[in-house]
Amino acid sequence: MSRERLIYLPLGGAGEVGMNAYVYGYGAPGKERLILVDLGLTFPTMDNAPGVDLVLPDVSWLAENADRLEAIFITHAHEDHVGALAHLWSRLRAPVYARRFTGRLAQMKMEEQGQPTEKVHIVGAHPEVVEVGPFKVSFVPISHSIPETAALLIDTPAGRIVHAADFKLDTDPVVGERFDEAVFARIGDEGVKVLVCDSTNVFVPHAGRSESTLKGPITELVKSAPGMVVATTFASNVARVKTLAQAGHDAGRQVCLLGRAMQRMIGVAQETGILSDMPPLIPSERAAETPGGDLMLIVTGSQGERRAASAQLSRGRYLGLQLREGDLFLFSSKTIPGNERGVLAIINAFSEMGVDVVDDSTSRYHVSGHANRPDLERIHALLKPDMILPNHGEHRMLRAHAKLASDAGIATAVVVNGTMMDVTGEVPREVEQVEAGRLYLDGNVIYGAMDGIVRDRLRMAMNGHVTVTLILEEDDTLGDPWCEMRGLAERGRSRAPLVDMLESQLSDYIGRAGRKTRADDEALEDGLRRVVRQLCMEEIGKKPEVTVVISRLSDE
Amino acid sequence: MSRERLIYLPLGGAGEVGMNAYVYGYGAPGKERLILVDLGLTFPTMDNAPGVDLVLPDVSWLAENADRLEAIFITHAHEDHVGALAHLWSRLRAPVYARRFTGRLAQMKMEEQGQPTEKVHIVGAHPEVVEVGPFKVSFVPISHSIPETAALLIDTPAGRIVHAADFKLDTDPVVGERFDEAVFARIGDEGVKVLVCDSTNVFVPHAGRSESTLKGPITELVKSAPGMVVATTFASNVARVKTLAQAGHDAGRQVCLLGRAMQRMIGVAQETGILSDMPPLIPSERAAETPGGDLMLIVTGSQGERRAASAQLSRGRYLGLQLREGDLFLFSSKTIPGNERGVLAIINAFSEMGVDVVDDSTSRYHVSGHANRPDLERIHALLKPDMILPNHGEHRMLRAHAKLASDAGIATAVVVNGTMMDVTGEVPREVEQVEAGRLYLDGNVIYGAMDGIVRDRLRMAMNGHVTVTLILEEDDTLGDPWCEMRGLAERGRSRAPLVDMLESQLSDYIGRAGRKTRADDEALEDGLRRVVRQLCMEEIGKKPEVTVVISRLSDE
Repeated sequence: MSRERLIYLPLGGAGEVGMNAYVYGYGAPGKERLILVDLGLTFPTMDNAPGVDLVLPDVSWLAENADRLEAIFITHAHEDHVGALAHLWSRLRAPVYARRFTGRLAQMKMEEQGQPTEKVHIVGAHPEVVEVGPFKVSFVPISHSIPETAALLIDTPAGRIVHAADFKLDTDPVVGERFDEAVFARIGDEGVKVLVCDSTNVFVPHAGRSESTLKGPITELVKSAPGMVVATTFASNVARVKTLAQAGHDAGRQVCLLGRAMQRMIGVAQETGILSDMPPLIPSERAAETPGGDLMLIVTGSQGERRAASAQLSRGRYLGLQLREGDLFLFSSKTIPGNERGVLAIINAFSEMGVDVVDDSTSRYHVSGHANRPDLERIHALLKPDMILPNHGEHRMLRAHAKLASDAGIATAVVVNGTMMDVTGEVPREVEQVEAGRLYLDGNVIYGAMDGIVRDRLRMAMNGHVTVTLILEEDDTLGDPWCEMRGLAERGRSRAPLVDMLESQLSDYIGRAGRKTRADDEALEDGLRRVVRQLCMEEIGKKPEVTVVISRLSDE
Repeated sequence: MSRERLIYLPLGGAGEVGMNAYVYGYGAPGKERLILVDLGLTFPTMDNAPGVDLVLPDVSWLAENADRLEAIFITHAHEDHVGALAHLWSRLRAPVYARRFTGRLAQMKMEEQGQPTEKVHIVGAHPEVVEVGPFKVSFVPISHSIPETAALLIDTPAGRIVHAADFKLDTDPVVGERFDEAVFARIGDEGVKVLVCDSTNVFVPHAGRSESTLKGPITELVKSAPGMVVATTFASNVARVKTLAQAGHDAGRQVCLLGRAMQRMIGVAQETGILSDMPPLIPSERAAETPGGDLMLIVTGSQGERRAASAQLSRGRYLGLQLREGDLFLFSSKTIPGNERGVLAIINAFSEMGVDVVDDSTSRYHVSGHANRPDLERIHALLKPDMILPNHGEHRMLRAHAKLASDAGIATAVVVNGTMMDVTGEVPREVEQVEAGRLYLDGNVIYGAMDGIVRDRLRMAMNGHVTVTLILEEDDTLGDPWCEMRGLAERGRSRAPLVDMLESQLSDYIGRAGRKTRADDEALEDGLRRVVRQLCMEEIGKKPEVTVVISRLSDE
């Protein structure tokens, strides 16, 4: 029996929606040659990471083993699959493979971050094969809510893995390649050892609907609107943008795209030949001169992002455009859990303007890009894998997906980020836990989520901050201690200015403190901090964060 | 024609869900005698008010006119209708009227805040009337998700107002009074001038379902469960708690309530005679000794609150109780928009334990307490008001509700917090804008949302904080400037410690600064702040908040 083994190790996306990053390896234990599939990001929230720009998977383990990393494959161009690539590539330095549209967008990201674009190699679809180390990898087109998504066939000496990435079973996806059942049936007939499969929509009980079903309802809606029509969707949903633009065009309206992300996506889709029959577009300056009833805007910001076009329009005039009583705003998108507040703020702002907002509640104007439960069952049945490892999803989704598999008599396991599985045998077997957390991109620095930086910011946000400065000469204070507060009420229970009370009590404390304490910076700091926190608790019912600065002039 | 007028002025709840507070007045303009209906709170979020405990309506206008305020009426005991009473009563000092259960809970709140409980007067239901100034007010029982909810009949010299508060049309609400159509039809026949009416569920297209429809499905679910069953719902939903307890009891399980809010609600409901046939309960110590399969827990925390029982259980052992593989957790509740992240965190934590979570997605185990669109139409038709003023709801809800009214040919207006309406005539007429914002209860201090305190905390959370201290003697620095950072990366682009770089650049700046700048605290502070922000931007891509402390020894 060979001592070689086949391993699977998610570093992101397994136990969450977003931030996908999956490692496969083949070889002797600890010496496996590795590939990485996808390197995505997720978005921070005020609750967990205020001020952070992006959340990236912690690839420390992979960086430490970069000499074993043969290549990085990108299945599609969604941010949660490619968004971390340019930020983390310098730690991995492996060649990147993607299809044309995805690869072009990845190259642009690499360029923006000053990384070598030539490391991103454009490859063709299945049956073209990329051979790296013990792996033969090919990109099998599958439908999703962005063009050119691919499931990966990963052939290894231990058998074939199908990494299904994100997908839906759409035979008429409007833009890009349709789901071809015959192809997947043939792959299934050839034998699949492991299927690693999207779990995000496992709780949706009905089969997914085709992108093409939206054209009628959207066209009808746009035609029936008297005033300006503004629609938002994900910038990367090229098919949807086309459907919306076509509906506007068919209704005799001038169509204008607002938002750089969307303009870039459409540009790249046209440049790579994926999108060839887009209706004509006008620039925003022309749109600003066009009467509302003759205009259709397609804008970014379907998730309520504060700086995107939809939020800007909800706050008033934007690029010379302004919505009015009787105009129509369409969310051709669903709100991702956690983004509700931002989206509702926009809807209510439009409501105040008298704008009619149509959202996803009827399901007439949006379909999901992911496989629902019956679709998952269908792909399981087509591919007939020996083993199913649910990926991309919160724990509850992975667990429900694993139950689907085991109910069908297929070996399975719930595998979360950082768990290395040996999948060489008939059942998956846990072999190691590796570090797999989150990194924060904050300004232009990347640091660990557990480094304490964000924790300190959250504490200041919750508790406010007090600065205490004290100057000591020899063993005597030179002047009184000085306080500055930030983010705290100026007066509390006793109605006197809190700063004055603090300074007076700190002064008393120093007077009382013994010679030994005064000579000991640490003891003095502790004492001063305690005085501040205790008095603040009494006065305003909060214990603030405290920075104490002691300056000793005698040292000079 | 009389110069007297009837006014309506929402101070909270009109333009939001939560924080209800509505003023009515009758008299000569500016001299109207006033009543306040409800004084509720809303909950802060990390996005808008980190560290804040409660959000209260800004009642400044009412406090300034407290001499004109005859009384405060509380329609029901939900926090968004009574939660601010004890915190703000001292600013208003008017007698409070409520029915028995509501009043008892209000008294407990007053007591906790050291306010006079005897100011809360317990009154009977319609036809009992409270006469205050020009108003005759009576409490008409109506069904909702808490016992003893009342719509108010407010008779004034200018006609009758029905303030419908929160309600649903439930003819079998399990606990408390059913909706009695005949009563409302009679009120309608007597003539209603203004209906002020709950808008929260205006977007729900189907008629509301009765609380009693849940008993069968919940009992079935509990009976079919092999392990421990834990159910959560709103603590105040006494009927639901009873249904859950009865289901546990019928399944032969011991029933235990966890969470003080729920125990208090059930206690007061029993004490006031509203709940008489609750199944026996066991204390948590007994529950901890009971095998899971013989146990049913009913717990607080349906909205994912971190300190409530459901969150505690999701983190592991709590009060000696621990969920295991195969146990069942039921959310007999819906997730309020904005609370999704907290609820999902709990569901995923349970998923990791192997606990099966049943949520509201099937609608089998939860019904809403509010009137849906067809129910609103029914109450409009029964009461036949001359005018409908939608209250309690986000702007989009008020607007949709107003459209329902105007489509039915009834005079209406979208009235938001702070807008005073004259409703004496046939159509509502805006007469004044008064200040109506939000107050924050933070620790034990109440301050205005716009006071800048929370803004400063949010800025520190987003940007981090740097303290700079500098000691000057006469015109010379005594020692070098000193920096402390909080919530910022230690090293940036150039890899050197950022604090060292900052101190060195600050030192250079002071060396360069002219005599005039050095003599001017404000100029010096500005300069130092600018140096810090600029270098941080270059190094880490962020501009932190900066506190500069300059100590001048020469002044002594």
